[in-house]
Amino acid sequence: MKIIELNRSVTESNDRDADALRAKMKEKGVLMFNLMSSPGSGKTTLLSRVIRDMKDNTRIGVMEADIASDVDAIRIEEMGAKAIQAHTDGMCHMDAGMTERAFDALGDEQLDIVFLENVGNLICPAEFDTGAGKNIMILSVPEGDDKPLKYPLMFETSDALIITKMDTLSYFDFDLELCRERVRALNPDIRIFPVSAVTGEGMEDFENWIRECKKEW
Amino acid sequence: MKIIELNRSVTESNDRDADALRAKMKEKGVLMFNLMSSPGSGKTTLLSRVIRDMKDNTRIGVMEADIASDVDAIRIEEMGAKAIQAHTDGMCHMDAGMTERAFDALGDEQLDIVFLENVGNLICPAEFDTGAGKNIMILSVPEGDDKPLKYPLMFETSDALIITKMDTLSYFDFDLELCRERVRALNPDIRIFPVSAVTGEGMEDFENWIRECKKEW
Repeated sequence: MKIIELNRSVTESNDRDADALRAKMKEKGVLMFNLMSSPGSGKTTLLSRVIRDMKDNTRIGVMEADIASDVDAIRIEEMGAKAIQAHTDGMCHMDAGMTERAFDALGDEQLDIVFLENVGNLICPAEFDTGAGKNIMILSVPEGDDKPLKYPLMFETSDALIITKMDTLSYFDFDLELCRERVRALNPDIRIFPVSAVTGEGMEDFENWIRECKKEW
Repeated sequence: MKIIELNRSVTESNDRDADALRAKMKEKGVLMFNLMSSPGSGKTTLLSRVIRDMKDNTRIGVMEADIASDVDAIRIEEMGAKAIQAHTDGMCHMDAGMTERAFDALGDEQLDIVFLENVGNLICPAEFDTGAGKNIMILSVPEGDDKPLKYPLMFETSDALIITKMDTLSYFDFDLELCRERVRALNPDIRIFPVSAVTGEGMEDFENWIRECKKEW
Protein backbone atom coordinates (compact mmCIF):
# COMPACT_ATOMS: atom_id res chain seq x y z
CA MET A 1 0.00 0.00 0.00
CA LYS A 2 1.32 3.40 -1.03
CA ILE A 3 1.34 6.48 1.17
CA ILE A 4 1.35 9.87 -0.53
CA GLU A 5 2.11 13.19 1.21
CA LEU A 6 -0.11 16.03 -0.03
CA ASN A 7 0.13 19.76 0.51
CA ARG A 8 -2.57 22.30 -0.12
CA SER A 9 -2.98 22.96 -3.85
CA VAL A 10 -1.99 26.43 -4.94
CA THR A 11 -4.36 27.13 -7.79
CA GLU A 12 -6.58 29.99 -8.69
CA SER A 13 -9.78 28.06 -8.77
CA ASN A 14 -10.63 24.88 -6.91
CA ASP A 15 -13.98 24.71 -8.73
CA ARG A 16 -12.23 24.68 -12.11
CA ASP A 17 -9.81 21.97 -10.95
CA ALA A 18 -12.76 19.95 -9.65
CA ASP A 19 -14.63 20.19 -12.96
CA ALA A 20 -11.50 19.13 -14.85
CA LEU A 21 -10.98 16.12 -12.56
CA ARG A 22 -14.63 15.09 -12.96
CA ALA A 23 -14.27 15.25 -16.75
CA LYS A 24 -11.05 13.22 -16.63
CA MET A 25 -12.70 10.52 -14.51
CA LYS A 26 -15.76 10.45 -16.74
CA GLU A 27 -13.51 9.87 -19.74
CA LYS A 28 -11.84 7.00 -17.93
CA GLY A 29 -15.22 5.57 -16.97
CA VAL A 30 -14.59 5.92 -13.22
CA LEU A 31 -17.17 7.30 -10.81
CA MET A 32 -15.82 8.87 -7.62
CA PHE A 33 -17.81 9.05 -4.38
CA ASN A 34 -16.65 11.58 -1.80
CA LEU A 35 -17.43 10.30 1.73
CA MET A 36 -17.66 12.99 4.38
CA SER A 37 -18.43 12.66 8.09
CA SER A 38 -17.34 13.34 11.66
CA PRO A 39 -14.44 11.35 13.05
CA GLY A 40 -15.67 7.98 14.25
CA SER A 41 -18.91 7.82 12.26
CA GLY A 42 -17.99 4.44 10.83
CA LYS A 43 -16.85 5.40 7.30
CA THR A 44 -14.19 2.70 7.11
CA THR A 45 -16.44 -0.01 8.53
CA LEU A 46 -19.17 0.95 6.03
CA LEU A 47 -16.68 0.92 3.19
CA SER A 48 -15.29 -2.47 4.22
CA ARG A 49 -18.80 -3.89 4.03
CA VAL A 50 -19.47 -2.32 0.61
CA ILE A 51 -16.20 -3.75 -0.73
CA ARG A 52 -17.00 -7.20 0.62
CA ASP A 53 -20.48 -7.12 -0.95
CA MET A 54 -19.51 -5.61 -4.32
CA LYS A 55 -15.93 -6.54 -5.12
CA ASP A 56 -16.74 -9.62 -7.20
CA ASN A 57 -18.51 -7.54 -9.85
CA THR A 58 -16.98 -4.11 -9.41
CA ARG A 59 -13.39 -2.88 -9.50
CA ILE A 60 -13.10 -0.61 -6.48
CA GLY A 61 -10.35 1.82 -5.53
CA VAL A 62 -10.14 3.70 -2.22
CA MET A 63 -8.28 6.88 -1.33
CA GLU A 64 -7.95 7.29 2.43
CA ALA A 65 -7.29 10.90 3.43
CA ASP A 66 -5.99 11.46 6.93
CA ILE A 67 -3.83 13.92 8.79
CA ALA A 68 -1.74 11.10 10.20
CA SER A 69 -1.72 7.28 10.40
CA ASP A 70 -2.47 4.61 7.82
CA VAL A 71 -4.76 2.38 9.87
CA ASP A 72 -7.74 2.86 7.54
CA ALA A 73 -5.90 2.05 4.31
CA ILE A 74 -4.53 -1.14 5.83
CA ARG A 75 -8.05 -2.25 6.83
CA ILE A 76 -9.33 -1.47 3.33
CA GLU A 77 -6.55 -3.38 1.56
CA GLU A 78 -7.30 -6.38 3.74
CA MET A 79 -10.86 -6.33 2.34
CA GLY A 80 -9.49 -6.71 -1.17
CA ALA A 81 -9.77 -3.23 -2.69
CA LYS A 82 -6.92 -1.21 -4.12
CA ALA A 83 -6.12 1.49 -1.55
CA ILE A 84 -3.86 4.47 -1.16
CA GLN A 85 -3.26 6.46 2.01
CA ALA A 86 -3.06 10.22 1.50
CA HIS A 87 -1.61 12.35 4.29
CA THR A 88 -2.92 15.90 4.23
CA ASP A 89 -0.03 17.54 6.07
CA GLY A 90 -2.36 18.82 8.80
CA MET A 91 -5.01 20.06 6.36
CA CYS A 92 -8.60 19.62 7.49
CA HIS A 93 -10.05 18.76 4.07
CA MET A 94 -9.17 17.55 0.56
CA ASP A 95 -9.27 19.97 -2.36
CA ALA A 96 -9.53 18.96 -6.03
CA GLY A 97 -5.80 19.21 -6.72
CA MET A 98 -4.96 17.00 -3.74
CA THR A 99 -7.62 14.52 -4.83
CA GLU A 100 -6.22 14.38 -8.36
CA ARG A 101 -2.71 13.67 -7.07
CA ALA A 102 -4.08 10.88 -4.87
CA PHE A 103 -6.11 9.49 -7.78
CA ASP A 104 -3.06 9.50 -10.05
CA ALA A 105 -1.03 7.75 -7.35
CA LEU A 106 -3.71 5.06 -7.08
CA GLY A 107 -2.38 3.82 -10.42
CA ASP A 108 -3.37 3.28 -13.98
CA GLU A 109 -5.36 0.09 -13.95
CA GLN A 110 -9.03 0.31 -14.88
CA LEU A 111 -11.40 0.90 -11.96
CA ASP A 112 -15.19 1.20 -11.97
CA ILE A 113 -15.68 3.25 -8.86
CA VAL A 114 -13.39 5.10 -6.47
CA PHE A 115 -14.21 6.12 -2.93
CA LEU A 116 -12.50 9.13 -1.40
CA GLU A 117 -12.65 8.85 2.39
CA ASN A 118 -12.31 12.53 3.18
CA VAL A 119 -10.81 13.86 6.44
CA GLY A 120 -13.16 13.33 9.43
CA ASN A 121 -14.69 16.79 9.76
CA LEU A 122 -18.25 18.10 9.27
CA ILE A 123 -17.24 21.60 8.26
CA CYS A 124 -14.32 22.23 5.92
CA PRO A 125 -14.77 19.29 3.49
CA ALA A 126 -18.24 20.60 2.59
CA GLU A 127 -16.68 23.83 1.32
CA PHE A 128 -14.35 22.22 -1.24
CA ASP A 129 -15.49 20.43 -4.39
CA THR A 130 -13.15 17.45 -4.70
CA GLY A 131 -14.17 16.60 -8.26
CA ALA A 132 -16.32 13.68 -7.10
CA GLY A 133 -19.32 12.60 -9.14
CA LYS A 134 -21.37 12.10 -5.99
CA ASN A 135 -21.07 13.40 -2.44
CA ILE A 136 -22.08 11.15 0.43
CA MET A 137 -22.49 12.24 4.00
CA ILE A 138 -22.32 9.74 6.84
CA LEU A 139 -24.01 10.45 10.15
CA SER A 140 -23.92 7.89 12.93
CA VAL A 141 -26.77 7.36 15.38
CA PRO A 142 -24.63 8.17 18.49
CA GLU A 143 -23.86 11.64 17.08
CA GLY A 144 -27.47 12.72 17.45
CA ASP A 145 -30.38 13.86 15.29
CA ASP A 146 -29.59 17.57 15.76
CA LYS A 147 -26.59 17.61 13.40
CA PRO A 148 -28.55 19.02 10.41
CA LEU A 149 -29.30 22.08 12.55
CA LYS A 150 -25.63 22.59 13.38
CA TYR A 151 -23.78 21.69 10.17
CA PRO A 152 -26.28 22.57 7.43
CA LEU A 153 -23.81 22.99 4.53
CA MET A 154 -22.70 19.36 4.71
CA PHE A 155 -26.30 18.17 4.33
CA GLU A 156 -27.02 20.68 1.57
CA THR A 157 -24.09 19.60 -0.60
CA SER A 158 -24.60 15.82 -0.32
CA ASP A 159 -26.41 13.56 -2.79
CA ALA A 160 -26.95 10.86 -0.20
CA LEU A 161 -27.02 10.62 3.59
CA ILE A 162 -26.06 7.29 5.15
CA ILE A 163 -27.21 6.97 8.76
CA THR A 164 -24.84 4.39 10.27
CA LYS A 165 -24.81 2.29 13.46
CA MET A 166 -28.58 1.70 13.20
CA ASP A 167 -28.09 -1.41 15.35
CA THR A 168 -27.44 0.92 18.32
CA LEU A 169 -30.63 2.98 17.84
CA SER A 170 -32.27 1.70 21.02
CA TYR A 171 -29.37 2.88 23.20
CA PHE A 172 -29.46 6.50 22.05
CA ASP A 173 -31.94 9.32 22.01
CA PHE A 174 -32.04 9.55 18.19
CA ASP A 175 -35.34 10.29 16.41
CA LEU A 176 -35.00 8.94 12.86
CA GLU A 177 -38.13 10.66 11.55
CA LEU A 178 -37.18 14.00 13.08
CA CYS A 179 -33.71 13.65 11.56
CA ARG A 180 -35.20 12.94 8.12
CA GLU A 181 -37.42 16.02 8.39
CA ARG A 182 -34.52 18.25 9.36
CA VAL A 183 -32.39 16.93 6.50
CA ARG A 184 -35.13 17.25 3.88
CA ALA A 185 -35.82 20.83 4.95
CA LEU A 186 -32.22 21.59 3.90
CA ASN A 187 -32.08 19.32 0.87
CA PRO A 188 -35.37 17.88 -0.49
CA ASP A 189 -33.61 15.72 -3.13
CA ILE A 190 -31.15 13.91 -0.86
CA ARG A 191 -31.38 10.11 -0.70
CA ILE A 192 -31.39 8.78 2.88
CA PHE A 193 -30.18 5.27 3.74
CA PRO A 194 -30.31 4.09 7.37
CA VAL A 195 -27.87 1.17 7.63
CA SER A 196 -25.93 -1.05 9.96
CA ALA A 197 -22.67 -2.37 8.56
CA VAL A 198 -22.66 -4.86 11.45
CA THR A 199 -26.06 -6.50 10.88
CA GLY A 200 -26.26 -5.64 7.18
CA GLU A 201 -29.58 -3.78 7.61
CA GLY A 202 -30.15 -1.33 4.75
CA MET A 203 -26.89 -2.16 2.96
CA GLU A 204 -28.56 -3.58 -0.14
CA ASP A 205 -30.51 -0.38 -0.82
CA PHE A 206 -27.38 1.69 -0.46
CA GLU A 207 -25.38 -0.61 -2.71
CA ASN A 208 -28.13 -0.60 -5.34
CA TRP A 209 -28.00 3.19 -5.31
CA ILE A 210 -24.23 3.01 -5.92
CA ARG A 211 -24.87 0.69 -8.90
CA GLU A 212 -27.57 3.04 -10.28
CA CYS A 213 -25.24 6.03 -10.02
CA LYS A 214 -22.52 4.09 -11.84
CA LYS A 215 -24.95 3.08 -14.59
CA GLU A 216 -25.99 6.70 -15.14
CA TRP A 217 -22.41 8.03 -15.08
CA MET B 1 -29.90 34.52 25.73
CA LYS B 2 -27.67 36.60 23.50
CA ILE B 3 -26.39 35.55 20.10
CA ILE B 4 -23.19 37.15 18.85
CA GLU B 5 -21.93 36.98 15.25
CA LEU B 6 -18.15 36.59 15.06
CA ASN B 7 -15.81 36.90 12.11
CA ARG B 8 -12.26 35.69 11.94
CA SER B 9 -9.94 37.99 13.91
CA VAL B 10 -7.50 39.93 11.79
CA THR B 11 -4.49 40.21 14.06
CA GLU B 12 -0.84 39.57 13.62
CA SER B 13 -0.48 37.03 16.35
CA ASN B 14 -3.14 34.74 17.76
CA ASP B 15 -0.70 33.52 20.41
CA ARG B 16 -0.18 37.05 21.70
CA ASP B 17 -3.95 37.68 21.78
CA ALA B 18 -4.41 34.40 23.64
CA ASP B 19 -1.81 35.30 26.28
CA ALA B 20 -3.44 38.71 26.75
CA LEU B 21 -6.88 37.16 27.19
CA ARG B 22 -5.52 34.63 29.70
CA ALA B 23 -3.96 37.47 31.71
CA LYS B 24 -7.20 39.48 31.61
CA MET B 25 -9.20 36.49 32.88
CA LYS B 26 -6.66 35.76 35.59
CA GLU B 27 -6.99 39.33 36.79
CA LYS B 28 -10.76 38.96 36.92
CA GLY B 29 -10.39 35.63 38.77
CA VAL B 30 -12.09 33.63 36.03
CA LEU B 31 -10.76 30.30 34.77
CA MET B 32 -11.71 29.34 31.22
CA PHE B 33 -11.91 25.73 30.02
CA ASN B 34 -11.82 25.17 26.26
CA LEU B 35 -13.85 22.06 25.35
CA MET B 36 -12.91 20.46 22.05
CA SER B 37 -14.34 17.34 20.37
CA SER B 38 -15.97 15.82 17.31
CA PRO B 39 -19.56 16.73 16.56
CA GLY B 40 -21.89 14.59 18.65
CA SER B 41 -19.42 13.55 21.34
CA GLY B 42 -21.75 14.74 24.08
CA LYS B 43 -20.14 18.08 25.05
CA THR B 44 -23.44 19.78 25.83
CA THR B 45 -24.81 16.83 27.78
CA LEU B 46 -21.58 16.66 29.82
CA LEU B 47 -21.70 20.38 30.46
CA SER B 48 -25.34 20.24 31.53
CA ARG B 49 -24.43 17.63 34.13
CA VAL B 50 -21.45 19.66 35.40
CA ILE B 51 -23.65 22.74 35.75
CA ARG B 52 -26.33 20.80 37.61
CA ASP B 53 -23.74 19.34 40.00
CA MET B 54 -21.70 22.50 40.59
CA LYS B 55 -23.94 25.53 40.15
CA ASP B 56 -24.86 25.94 43.81
CA ASN B 57 -21.25 26.71 44.78
CA THR B 58 -19.75 27.97 41.53
CA ARG B 59 -20.73 30.82 39.22
CA ILE B 60 -20.54 29.29 35.74
CA GLY B 61 -20.65 30.97 32.33
CA VAL B 62 -20.83 29.14 29.02
CA MET B 63 -19.88 30.31 25.53
CA GLU B 64 -21.38 28.07 22.86
CA ALA B 65 -19.55 28.35 19.55
CA ASP B 66 -21.34 27.00 16.50
CA ILE B 67 -21.52 27.66 12.80
CA ALA B 68 -25.29 27.84 12.96
CA SER B 69 -28.16 27.22 15.40
CA ASP B 70 -28.59 28.06 19.06
CA VAL B 71 -29.88 24.72 20.33
CA ASP B 72 -26.94 24.19 22.69
CA ALA B 73 -27.10 27.59 24.37
CA ILE B 74 -30.81 27.16 25.02
CA ARG B 75 -30.18 23.77 26.69
CA ILE B 76 -27.41 25.30 28.83
CA GLU B 77 -29.53 28.27 29.97
CA GLU B 78 -32.25 25.85 31.00
CA MET B 79 -29.71 24.23 33.34
CA GLY B 80 -29.21 27.53 35.12
CA ALA B 81 -25.86 28.81 33.80
CA LYS B 82 -25.29 32.10 32.07
CA ALA B 83 -24.86 31.32 28.36
CA ILE B 84 -24.08 33.08 25.14
CA GLN B 85 -24.31 31.65 21.64
CA ALA B 86 -21.47 32.64 19.32
CA HIS B 87 -21.90 32.09 15.58
CA THR B 88 -18.59 31.66 13.81
CA ASP B 89 -19.74 32.73 10.34
CA GLY B 90 -18.75 29.36 8.86
CA MET B 91 -15.37 29.26 10.63
CA CYS B 92 -14.28 25.82 11.80
CA HIS B 93 -12.65 26.95 15.05
CA MET B 94 -12.48 29.80 17.60
CA ASP B 95 -9.40 32.01 17.75
CA ALA B 96 -8.42 34.17 20.74
CA GLY B 97 -9.94 37.37 19.35
CA MET B 98 -13.27 35.69 18.71
CA THR B 99 -13.17 34.16 22.19
CA GLU B 100 -12.51 37.54 23.78
CA ARG B 101 -15.46 39.12 21.97
CA ALA B 102 -17.69 36.27 23.13
CA PHE B 103 -16.37 36.59 26.70
CA ASP B 104 -17.01 40.33 26.74
CA ALA B 105 -20.53 39.74 25.40
CA LEU B 106 -21.17 37.27 28.23
CA GLY B 107 -21.37 40.32 30.48
CA ASP B 108 -19.73 41.94 33.42
CA GLU B 109 -20.98 40.03 36.39
CA GLN B 110 -18.45 38.02 38.40
CA LEU B 111 -18.00 34.43 37.27
CA ASP B 112 -15.75 31.71 38.73
CA ILE B 113 -15.35 29.54 35.68
CA VAL B 114 -16.25 29.82 32.03
CA PHE B 115 -16.59 26.97 29.55
CA LEU B 116 -15.97 27.58 25.87
CA GLU B 117 -17.74 24.88 23.87
CA ASN B 118 -15.59 25.08 20.75
CA VAL B 119 -16.82 24.15 17.26
CA GLY B 120 -17.25 20.36 16.84
CA ASN B 121 -14.06 19.49 14.96
CA LEU B 122 -11.00 17.41 15.93
CA ILE B 123 -8.54 19.29 13.73
CA CYS B 124 -8.65 23.07 13.45
CA PRO B 125 -9.50 23.99 17.09
CA ALA B 126 -6.29 22.24 18.24
CA GLU B 127 -4.23 24.66 16.16
CA PHE B 128 -5.54 27.86 17.76
CA ASP B 129 -4.87 28.93 21.35
CA THR B 130 -8.16 30.45 22.54
CA GLY B 131 -6.69 31.99 25.68
CA ALA B 132 -8.17 29.27 27.88
CA GLY B 133 -6.46 28.31 31.13
CA LYS B 134 -7.11 24.62 30.47
CA ASN B 135 -7.85 22.63 27.33
CA ILE B 136 -10.18 19.66 27.58
CA MET B 137 -10.73 17.11 24.87
CA ILE B 138 -13.85 14.98 24.79
CA LEU B 139 -13.88 11.62 23.05
CA SER B 140 -16.99 9.46 23.07
CA VAL B 141 -16.91 5.67 23.19
CA PRO B 142 -18.80 5.25 19.86
CA GLU B 143 -16.08 7.21 18.02
CA GLY B 144 -13.51 4.48 18.63
CA ASP B 145 -10.20 3.97 20.43
CA ASP B 146 -8.13 4.74 17.30
CA LYS B 147 -8.69 8.51 17.39
CA PRO B 148 -5.33 9.29 19.10
CA LEU B 149 -3.63 7.71 16.07
CA LYS B 150 -5.57 9.87 13.63
CA TYR B 151 -5.83 13.26 15.37
CA PRO B 152 -2.67 13.41 17.50
CA LEU B 153 -2.43 17.20 17.89
CA MET B 154 -5.74 17.42 19.75
CA PHE B 155 -4.53 14.90 22.34
CA GLU B 156 -1.12 16.56 22.61
CA THR B 157 -2.54 20.02 23.36
CA SER B 158 -5.12 18.95 25.96
CA ASP B 159 -4.74 19.01 29.76
CA ALA B 160 -7.54 16.50 30.25
CA LEU B 161 -9.31 13.89 28.18
CA ILE B 162 -12.91 13.08 29.06
CA ILE B 163 -14.10 9.78 27.62
CA THR B 164 -17.89 10.13 27.42
CA LYS B 165 -20.81 7.73 26.91
CA MET B 166 -19.11 5.09 29.09
CA ASP B 167 -22.57 3.58 29.71
CA THR B 168 -22.50 2.35 26.07
CA LEU B 169 -19.10 0.63 26.35
CA SER B 170 -20.52 -2.87 26.01
CA TYR B 171 -22.15 -2.06 22.64
CA PHE B 172 -18.98 -0.88 20.95
CA ASP B 173 -15.59 -2.28 20.14
CA PHE B 174 -13.72 0.25 22.32
CA ASP B 175 -10.67 -0.86 24.31
CA LEU B 176 -10.28 1.60 27.20
CA GLU B 177 -6.80 0.43 28.19
CA LEU B 178 -5.52 0.55 24.61
CA CYS B 179 -6.98 4.03 24.25
CA ARG B 180 -5.23 5.18 27.45
CA GLU B 181 -1.91 3.79 26.17
CA ARG B 182 -2.25 5.54 22.83
CA VAL B 183 -3.12 8.84 24.51
CA ARG B 184 -0.29 8.65 27.06
CA ALA B 185 2.21 7.91 24.29
CA LEU B 186 1.31 11.33 22.85
CA ASN B 187 0.89 13.18 26.14
CA PRO B 188 2.18 11.52 29.34
CA ASP B 189 0.82 14.30 31.63
CA ILE B 190 -2.78 14.32 30.42
CA ARG B 191 -5.50 13.53 32.98
CA ILE B 192 -8.01 10.94 31.73
CA PHE B 193 -11.58 10.77 33.06
CA PRO B 194 -13.93 8.07 31.74
CA VAL B 195 -17.47 9.28 32.48
CA SER B 196 -21.14 8.84 31.75
CA ALA B 197 -23.23 11.97 32.08
CA VAL B 198 -26.29 9.71 32.01
CA THR B 199 -25.43 7.39 34.93
CA GLY B 200 -23.09 9.86 36.66
CA GLU B 201 -20.15 7.41 36.57
CA GLY B 202 -16.82 9.23 36.90
CA MET B 203 -18.39 12.69 37.10
CA GLU B 204 -17.21 13.39 40.64
CA ASP B 205 -13.53 12.84 39.74
CA PHE B 206 -13.86 15.15 36.77
CA GLU B 207 -15.63 17.83 38.80
CA ASN B 208 -13.02 17.59 41.57
CA TRP B 209 -10.34 18.18 38.94
CA ILE B 210 -12.22 21.31 37.79
CA ARG B 211 -12.28 22.53 41.41
CA GLU B 212 -8.54 21.82 41.84
CA CYS B 213 -7.72 23.73 38.65
CA LYS B 214 -9.79 26.68 39.87
CA LYS B 215 -8.03 26.64 43.25
CA GLU B 216 -4.61 26.72 41.59
CA TRP B 217 -5.60 29.45 39.10
